[in-house]
Amino acid sequence: MKKSLIRPCVVGLGYVGLPLFLKLQNKISTVGYDISDTRVKELKFFLDVNGEFKKKDLVLKKKSLITSDKNLLKFCNFFIVAVPTPISKKNIPDLSHLKKSCEIIGKVIVKNSIVFFESTVYPGVTENFCGRLLEKKSGLKLGVDFFVGYSPERINPGDKKHSIGKVVKIVSATNNNTLKVAKKIYKKVANKILTNKNIKEAESAKVIENIQRDLNIGLMNEVYKVCVNSKINFSNVIKLASTKWNFLKFDPGLVGGHCLPVDPYYFSNFAEKKGIKTEVILSGRKINNSMYLYMYNKIIKDIKNLKLNIKKSRILVLGLTYKKNVSDIRNSFALKLYRLLKKKIKYLEACDPFLTKKNIKNIKVLHNFNIDDYELILNFVNHDLFKNKILKIKKTNKKYLNLF
Amino acid sequence: MKKSLIRPCVVGLGYVGLPLFLKLQNKISTVGYDISDTRVKELKFFLDVNGEFKKKDLVLKKKSLITSDKNLLKFCNFFIVAVPTPISKKNIPDLSHLKKSCEIIGKVIVKNSIVFFESTVYPGVTENFCGRLLEKKSGLKLGVDFFVGYSPERINPGDKKHSIGKVVKIVSATNNNTLKVAKKIYKKVANKILTNKNIKEAESAKVIENIQRDLNIGLMNEVYKVCVNSKINFSNVIKLASTKWNFLKFDPGLVGGHCLPVDPYYFSNFAEKKGIKTEVILSGRKINNSMYLYMYNKIIKDIKNLKLNIKKSRILVLGLTYKKNVSDIRNSFALKLYRLLKKKIKYLEACDPFLTKKNIKNIKVLHNFNIDDYELILNFVNHDLFKNKILKIKKTNKKYLNLF
Repeated sequence: MKKSLIRPCVVGLGYVGLPLFLKLQNKISTVGYDISDTRVKELKFFLDVNGEFKKKDLVLKKKSLITSDKNLLKFCNFFIVAVPTPISKKNIPDLSHLKKSCEIIGKVIVKNSIVFFESTVYPGVTENFCGRLLEKKSGLKLGVDFFVGYSPERINPGDKKHSIGKVVKIVSATNNNTLKVAKKIYKKVANKILTNKNIKEAESAKVIENIQRDLNIGLMNEVYKVCVNSKINFSNVIKLASTKWNFLKFDPGLVGGHCLPVDPYYFSNFAEKKGIKTEVILSGRKINNSMYLYMYNKIIKDIKNLKLNIKKSRILVLGLTYKKNVSDIRNSFALKLYRLLKKKIKYLEACDPFLTKKNIKNIKVLHNFNIDDYELILNFVNHDLFKNKILKIKKTNKKYLNLF
Repeated sequence: MKKSLIRPCVVGLGYVGLPLFLKLQNKISTVGYDISDTRVKELKFFLDVNGEFKKKDLVLKKKSLITSDKNLLKFCNFFIVAVPTPISKKNIPDLSHLKKSCEIIGKVIVKNSIVFFESTVYPGVTENFCGRLLEKKSGLKLGVDFFVGYSPERINPGDKKHSIGKVVKIVSATNNNTLKVAKKIYKKVANKILTNKNIKEAESAKVIENIQRDLNIGLMNEVYKVCVNSKINFSNVIKLASTKWNFLKFDPGLVGGHCLPVDPYYFSNFAEKKGIKTEVILSGRKINNSMYLYMYNKIIKDIKNLKLNIKKSRILVLGLTYKKNVSDIRNSFALKLYRLLKKKIKYLEACDPFLTKKNIKNIKVLHNFNIDDYELILNFVNHDLFKNKILKIKKTNKKYLNLF
């Protein structure tokens, strides 16, 4: 495949695919494909409902295009798949989006095409699941007629510092030419490329990065609970521990979203098939999943200690998204906690400037608020946008609680 | 208590107490007390069987003395207790050494004395366990007639970089004068002092530092097992993951010794009394406790894969101590693993230059070896002293395996 002939296509224009597509299409004519007509229409009208990109960022260059028309993929020969890999209700990896993507691509790929995957998976998915599906749908042979590779996304929504251009991009494929071509493409979006000839290693690396973070937060949640129950000041304990040269500062939290709450199950599921029952990995996830329930009980107790009445007091919650500075509410424990409290507290309202009616149903979400309207303000998600308001609150003697 | 009148005594001259005593007695006349006559005799003859200190380090100054005679403690008014806090066979905190120390000190303390503790404990031990015992034995009143404090040891055996003088020393006590006096004393051994007015916070901080490390190694052990079982190269996975900005590099290992394998039980035991069943904390310890069994099976398999015969091949193990560059074999999983393999492998020998006959019974330990005498060399504990020999082995085509 000659350089001039590479025609890339990004499949899936969500939190991962969109930034990748936008960077790539600045440098080379690229097709951006999404299965959702609505998403495609919005993006064409320069609207990113996720709030990550502004109008000017969404202007297309180099004759690039955004489409939901599968037929246009025929003209592409380098696919980058960035679709969600969630879990089922029973915490089993749900590869249905990957499956759908492979079916779509399989029907259109031509000989010598390359298909890269960016979604977080367990080891073996790229070659054994996606590769086989592509073979089946295309009638072509993996490793002979077409090639696959894996390049784990390291997008951190809401984090401008570690954007795709600035972090190391792992690019893995088993064959040298595939690696060479992929490196050429990825060089257009990332400054630091690290190639690797074993795909399963790259798949494993990605998933354990998130597991490590999830577990460390899980540990802090557990220590937090013990401290609260024994009336020891958790923040002071951490301040003291942090003076040790090798102590790692992690904060307790309601770890939601679509990475940390999901990835441990991908790896532990895989491990179980290989005869290892993972206990460390799942222990962190278990406590993180249940933390909102612990916080629910704590808040109800705190409200009583503050001599407020859950039937009468007006209480405001700040932030409902899964983490700060994003508009994403998927797997948001702040939202779960709010819904739970709402059943108990009569006058409970929520403010989150990141949410529009579109993101959230059945909840009236304020975009702004008047401090004096509430007797207690609970900060669930510390959006930077709240900063000034919180400073103001702290200057009054208004009752105010941070979640942790 | 005027400055000129402070007469310190370090109780317990082991891995923690001895370095503290040696630094302190350089600056102020100090009594070093150990319950063991043998230990005291050896130290007086300038011998530290732990191999941490040389003859010249053990020379006493400022009229300081080392003793096993309790009567000499009568002349002291500032005690620093640094005795072991192990666990029982059922993983229950064993405070017997602390108890014994408090009984000894309780019988001799005079009014206005201060007793500091350095041993790792669970929150509340200093005040509620030690404080009460001292009251009982002395007839004096805690907080009125005498005072207690906690200053967690952060000794890392074998680590010259983070010696007592260079790391932050937390000094906690509830009353200002006690803090002031303690700071004066600790200033003589540590450059950075951090005072804290809540003892339980300092007790918690210490124990969670070690728990965090234990857990992170536990995670790597689990990932290692999954990788081995699925034929994925673990080191390559970690190399890739390490290119993420926030990945934390921990190595899998046989985590033995008297800190990491013990401290999780101290905290989880305490937590349980406070109504929290700790799952994250103990999950790490559980896998770390069992890792030597996993490695046993792996080694037996590796030996077969190398076409060696466990009934005939001569195999050498390098290192038996609980970690590198120390002579300590307490809770050494390398030793446990060796004993297990010894039952199966007919010609198995061990080399550990840190061990003398005194440290280890029933095992013939070589201090040096001839590469050609063995068909396989297994490196269990990577002492720096082995460096040249291992380089030599690697230059030959001798069969050689690192533990991980």
